[in-house]
Amino acid sequence: MLSATLRRQVTFRPLARLFSAEANLVTHNIALPPAPGPKANYMPYKRVGNTLFLSGHLPMLDNGDLLTGTVGGAGNLTTEEGANVARQCGLNLLASIKDAAGSLDNVEGVTKLFGLVQSDKSFKEQHLVLNGCSDLMCQVFGPDVGLHARSAVGVNTLPLDMAVEIEAIVQLKPM
Amino acid sequence: MLSATLRRQVTFRPLARLFSAEANLVTHNIALPPAPGPKANYMPYKRVGNTLFLSGHLPMLDNGDLLTGTVGGAGNLTTEEGANVARQCGLNLLASIKDAAGSLDNVEGVTKLFGLVQSDKSFKEQHLVLNGCSDLMCQVFGPDVGLHARSAVGVNTLPLDMAVEIEAIVQLKPM
Amino acid sequence: MLSATLRRQVTFRPLARLFSAEANLVTHNIALPPAPGPKANYMPYKRVGNTLFLSGHLPMLDNGDLLTGTVGGAGNLTTEEGANVARQCGLNLLASIKDAAGSLDNVEGVTKLFGLVQSDKSFKEQHLVLNGCSDLMCQVFGPDVGLHARSAVGVNTLPLDMAVEIEAIVQLKPM
Repeated sequence: MLSATLRRQVTFRPLARLFSAEANLVTHNIALPPAPGPKANYMPYKRVGNTLFLSGHLPMLDNGDLLTGTVGGAGNLTTEEGANVARQCGLNLLASIKDAAGSLDNVEGVTKLFGLVQSDKSFKEQHLVLNGCSDLMCQVFGPDVGLHARSAVGVNTLPLDMAVEIEAIVQLKPM
Repeated sequence: MLSATLRRQVTFRPLARLFSAEANLVTHNIALPPAPGPKANYMPYKRVGNTLFLSGHLPMLDNGDLLTGTVGGAGNLTTEEGANVARQCGLNLLASIKDAAGSLDNVEGVTKLFGLVQSDKSFKEQHLVLNGCSDLMCQVFGPDVGLHARSAVGVNTLPLDMAVEIEAIVQLKPM
Repeated sequence: MLSATLRRQVTFRPLARLFSAEANLVTHNIALPPAPGPKANYMPYKRVGNTLFLSGHLPMLDNGDLLTGTVGGAGNLTTEEGANVARQCGLNLLASIKDAAGSLDNVEGVTKLFGLVQSDKSFKEQHLVLNGCSDLMCQVFGPDVGLHARSAVGVNTLPLDMAVEIEAIVQLKPM
């Protein structure tokens, strides 16, 4: 006969598996790029207590190439293409979070995203672009952990001509 | 004869009433718009401990209309009109804060505002625009609670053509 | 014969001196400008517990003049000139931090910088501009304390035509 504690473990294990961010990566076939390394004078993230402050992350591909360009206006990236770039920023954010926390399952909550879209002046759908990253966070972490506060804004230019840059604040579980 | 404790209560009650943010709303005849609802994949705010992180808030009117347009340059919004838009963002922030905290009197301090003004390149008075929101915070909360750190910046474009977008960090009293 | 405690003090004192931010100011001949004062409705910084939230700081010189202009494009500021402006923002941030903390040696860590560069649309080196501030933080605080998370972005316009604006979050030692 099972003890109360053991029964609870048995009962909750499938539920816990359901909400495992690491398992979700496998389920959804999401491969993370290499975690960005520290630069000369700043870092991809800084941890203060259980709060992780993440630098503005680039839409870098596994081979180091950046997704560049302006969103909106003639001959430029479409909203949907922009959302794909935002998702790539999100994958790089996840790589940094995993690097900092050891496992994505150590994330207590995604607190906030701040996303900047290199935009033609006529482009007014930065919020739809940012959905590419917000959707990824909810897909990987589930709504309880993944839902976050967010700002989406347009700017005339970004470093290295990247199309989207996203920074984040993430709360980690106490160690 | 009053006990020391009771005397202190009697003495301080008028002072406490003076600094009630909820009473200030009534005194200054300030009506809050409906609190913004959660979106598909992000929320108007996320609370971590007693810290409230508020998403970039829109200058939305009670009827759901947005205050749109560019500030500065020929035929566009003036600085004063921009400040009025920033105030409307502030009213929406207050609605979210009240939704999160139950009462504005549960706010310990307004920590920080970050405000973006959709600006003509020639416009250089974003700080005067943001005063529309900063003044509101000090009017409602009084200087001890309402005074905050702040950044005011210009951008070439914002989502949905809104003229101003403001995000905030607010400290709540321990529950 | 020295007690273990005293020996430890003797052994570590030179090391501690090596990492004194205040001593580093002297060593590197860095003079801080006057700390920015509070404005009508907001403050240069707000402290919450041991966390210091710093407003967007201006590149103000000792005499109150601002370093203005757009970075990139014909006839405008170069990347190197922009980096010098970012360093001036950093000096103003340091002045505010010292004003808040009493001494720069009370800083536990520079958590995050967010830097905005007033940029020609063609300019893509905002990260190199921001290095002017990041380098200063590492020079003054040393890498353990000074290394930070960071975002560098371009915008079409900034208040008062300033070339760079930088806000920061800094962790102070418990009092």
